[in-house]
Amino acid sequence: MAHERETQALDRVAGRLSWDQETMMPRGAVEQRAEEMGAMQAMLHARKTDPQVGEWLEDARAPDAAGAAQLRLIAHRYARLTRVPADLTRELASLTSRSQSQWAAARADDDFAAFAPTLEEVVRLKREEGAALADGGDVYDALVDDYEPGARAADLAGIFDDMRPGLVELRLAALEGAERAPVSGRFAPEVQVALARELAERFGYDLNRGRIDMAVHPFSSGSGDDVRITTRVSENDPFNCLYSTIHEVGHACYEQGIDPAYHMTPVGQGVSMGVHESQSRIYENQLGRSRAFCEFLYGRMCDEFGDIGVPDAEAFYATVNRLHRGYIRTEADEVQYNLHIMLRFELERALIAGDLQVRDLEAAWNDRFKADFGYEVDRASNGVLQDVHWSVGLFGYFPTYSLGNVYAGCLHASLRADLPDLDEHLAQGDPSPATIWLRDKVQRHGGLYEPREVIERACGERPTAGPLMAYLKEKFGGLYPG
Amino acid sequence: MAHERETQALDRVAGRLSWDQETMMPRGAVEQRAEEMGAMQAMLHARKTDPQVGEWLEDARAPDAAGAAQLRLIAHRYARLTRVPADLTRELASLTSRSQSQWAAARADDDFAAFAPTLEEVVRLKREEGAALADGGDVYDALVDDYEPGARAADLAGIFDDMRPGLVELRLAALEGAERAPVSGRFAPEVQVALARELAERFGYDLNRGRIDMAVHPFSSGSGDDVRITTRVSENDPFNCLYSTIHEVGHACYEQGIDPAYHMTPVGQGVSMGVHESQSRIYENQLGRSRAFCEFLYGRMCDEFGDIGVPDAEAFYATVNRLHRGYIRTEADEVQYNLHIMLRFELERALIAGDLQVRDLEAAWNDRFKADFGYEVDRASNGVLQDVHWSVGLFGYFPTYSLGNVYAGCLHASLRADLPDLDEHLAQGDPSPATIWLRDKVQRHGGLYEPREVIERACGERPTAGPLMAYLKEKFGGLYPG
Repeated sequence: MAHERETQALDRVAGRLSWDQETMMPRGAVEQRAEEMGAMQAMLHARKTDPQVGEWLEDARAPDAAGAAQLRLIAHRYARLTRVPADLTRELASLTSRSQSQWAAARADDDFAAFAPTLEEVVRLKREEGAALADGGDVYDALVDDYEPGARAADLAGIFDDMRPGLVELRLAALEGAERAPVSGRFAPEVQVALARELAERFGYDLNRGRIDMAVHPFSSGSGDDVRITTRVSENDPFNCLYSTIHEVGHACYEQGIDPAYHMTPVGQGVSMGVHESQSRIYENQLGRSRAFCEFLYGRMCDEFGDIGVPDAEAFYATVNRLHRGYIRTEADEVQYNLHIMLRFELERALIAGDLQVRDLEAAWNDRFKADFGYEVDRASNGVLQDVHWSVGLFGYFPTYSLGNVYAGCLHASLRADLPDLDEHLAQGDPSPATIWLRDKVQRHGGLYEPREVIERACGERPTAGPLMAYLKEKFGGLYPG
Repeated sequence: MAHERETQALDRVAGRLSWDQETMMPRGAVEQRAEEMGAMQAMLHARKTDPQVGEWLEDARAPDAAGAAQLRLIAHRYARLTRVPADLTRELASLTSRSQSQWAAARADDDFAAFAPTLEEVVRLKREEGAALADGGDVYDALVDDYEPGARAADLAGIFDDMRPGLVELRLAALEGAERAPVSGRFAPEVQVALARELAERFGYDLNRGRIDMAVHPFSSGSGDDVRITTRVSENDPFNCLYSTIHEVGHACYEQGIDPAYHMTPVGQGVSMGVHESQSRIYENQLGRSRAFCEFLYGRMCDEFGDIGVPDAEAFYATVNRLHRGYIRTEADEVQYNLHIMLRFELERALIAGDLQVRDLEAAWNDRFKADFGYEVDRASNGVLQDVHWSVGLFGYFPTYSLGNVYAGCLHASLRADLPDLDEHLAQGDPSPATIWLRDKVQRHGGLYEPREVIERACGERPTAGPLMAYLKEKFGGLYPG
């Protein structure tokens, strides 16, 4: 465990270096930084795959449940890293360091064909990697496991297939309703950031153990006592800054909320992408976009910005939650977001299974999009080329976004049952009863339990899509009577 | 060299982590960061003392002069690190991580006796370390070697002894002159920082490969394409910000100016503290506080701040260069600074030699101060407790400050001889002829030559205190006719 603790500390340093790269690093330092990061990763890989670690694992006996979880997580990582041949790991690292810029160029040109050969190579290597990891099991499952330990694609497909018809229907009904106007007015960047900071603290983000900076794509990073978030500012759209901040605060509060006894150990971090996303989503959507909190936020925004072109809190609530036609996943609302994910999940699963070829991917994307969204993709940058994930080999990551939404739905139903007067607090700008509930039920455990077990313990039953769908129907049915 | 390149990259990461600690780190992350830094240092120590490195060094043959310098630097580091027993290294690290806060507490209480037992322990361990490093040679020389490779205390003492009477005399004569008033007016922090940024660029700092942040104690960090500086702002004293920025820019330009072929190698860094300080001092003092540059800066400050309470450029020059009575090294002017250093040099040399006991240190300090400065130290925080260095085991560091001044004096005389019309450029706010000269003669070589050799090659003769003393006499004799 002393060796592991040092490994964890070095992992934190590598994470801080990535943060620096996105926020502080001078433009001219790109190449030097790649070399620094490569050296960190090579050193960490060597530590984590040291045969000595394998020997220790064979002899180790856990003194208690937390110790057992530590050993399980270390053994899982050791098996994961040692199963993949070193040559393949190198080949993948080398390819994905080049492929991202090729994807960016192809996206700028709306030219999928230009990127297809590179993507074919990425898919080929990821299938090889998955096969090495799967050890005879399902190859795609083995890739998902990197982001959502223990999740199985067949289970995910079952959940998603149940949701899809309801979401398509809800989408159509909601879009038939009147289009809500966006806000209007002047939203000074420094006032947006000050308000975002206030909201971050209201949602429980401890700035004594964190900080907020600007970045092109907002993210959260770090764990324990140094958990930093970033945001961005769009002068015409204050919700971009405010809600991305609340989203990242959800991630950050998860990391800050973990029992300090687990700091600098494998258990001392969020357990999976899905559970992480459940926290960011419930903070952003179920709490932050609730009618009660919108009442508060409407008042605060009028204080800060004067007339924002919205007559009252109810109209503000509708504006914050409005559905609109669009192509881009990251700009999608609570309903349509999941349709975006399911599309990617099915396509990437078929790619890895070998049932879909990269040369047919764009057509498959466009067909599926038409079926779910009702209109045609107009260009590749609005379609198959919009996300960076596949270009850097992130296969198996997408489903964790919707799984996070499903988990958030379950947690929200449970916490509402436990906190009947939550809305009164939210209307005063005080989400703390909910965030304290989440810290107690989910966050403090870190990696102590398997991901699905965390949600099951918090809610008292196995997670299903039922609560999320009920919430969405109530919210968007009520907002937009078709 | 591939192994060494990775070591260098990891060293850069550790340096970046220190920068983060002083500029960005949340207050609550102190303990976690100590653990992260400890893990980085342990990992780096293990890499640098790996017996494999020793074997490689035995077999290695350099292909050229640069390769020979690389091997020399790696071998020097390997010998330095492997000579000190691991137990002693650990003991020193543990002690100095605690002793700094004890020093800070004692300084706050003006109570040297409270700190003396800890300092005794530091001195004892540093003497042990020095003896292990010296391998039969002079113990203090072995400690100096960490900061100024190849320097010998006897030579330094010779230089300093030659300078001391002249400095004491100059100090007295200058203080008899009229006291110059400081500037007055309002100096808005953001305007100070903008002007500091402008000055940084005028002095050649490449902001595309660097950045400027705030810190309590300004410093420069990094090398190659990521060299960052910090500054601080005092609302009543704009020179604090402006001249500390020019000082740090001198350090940063040295690192940025090294031949890119040496990046990420041992040669790709400033060769010693003394040569580093020669760059920061010549930028700050010989160039930045020159009559010609003051002419430009006076105009710029009037543009930015309006009436600054100084009637003309000549009075501004006198203000920027005024001598005043004081106890604190870091606030001292070009003349008195060296007296502060010589005092510390002699005392620490005697401590390490065993000729002075810690219990007698405060009295020795106060006696020497009275002799050189002419008045009594009023309290320990203005005397023996003012600097952090000894508390963290930095014995042998102080003399490099004055050595840097001596080197700056030599370089300045040479560059003035080569650039007869430099003042015309400086008066236009353009130090580039001088900074280009310094890059060509000094900076680009990095660690290719031994420190003293760098100066000798740049100036065409062995460095002595003569040029510095002549410069000081001319400048401060002329400023203050006694």
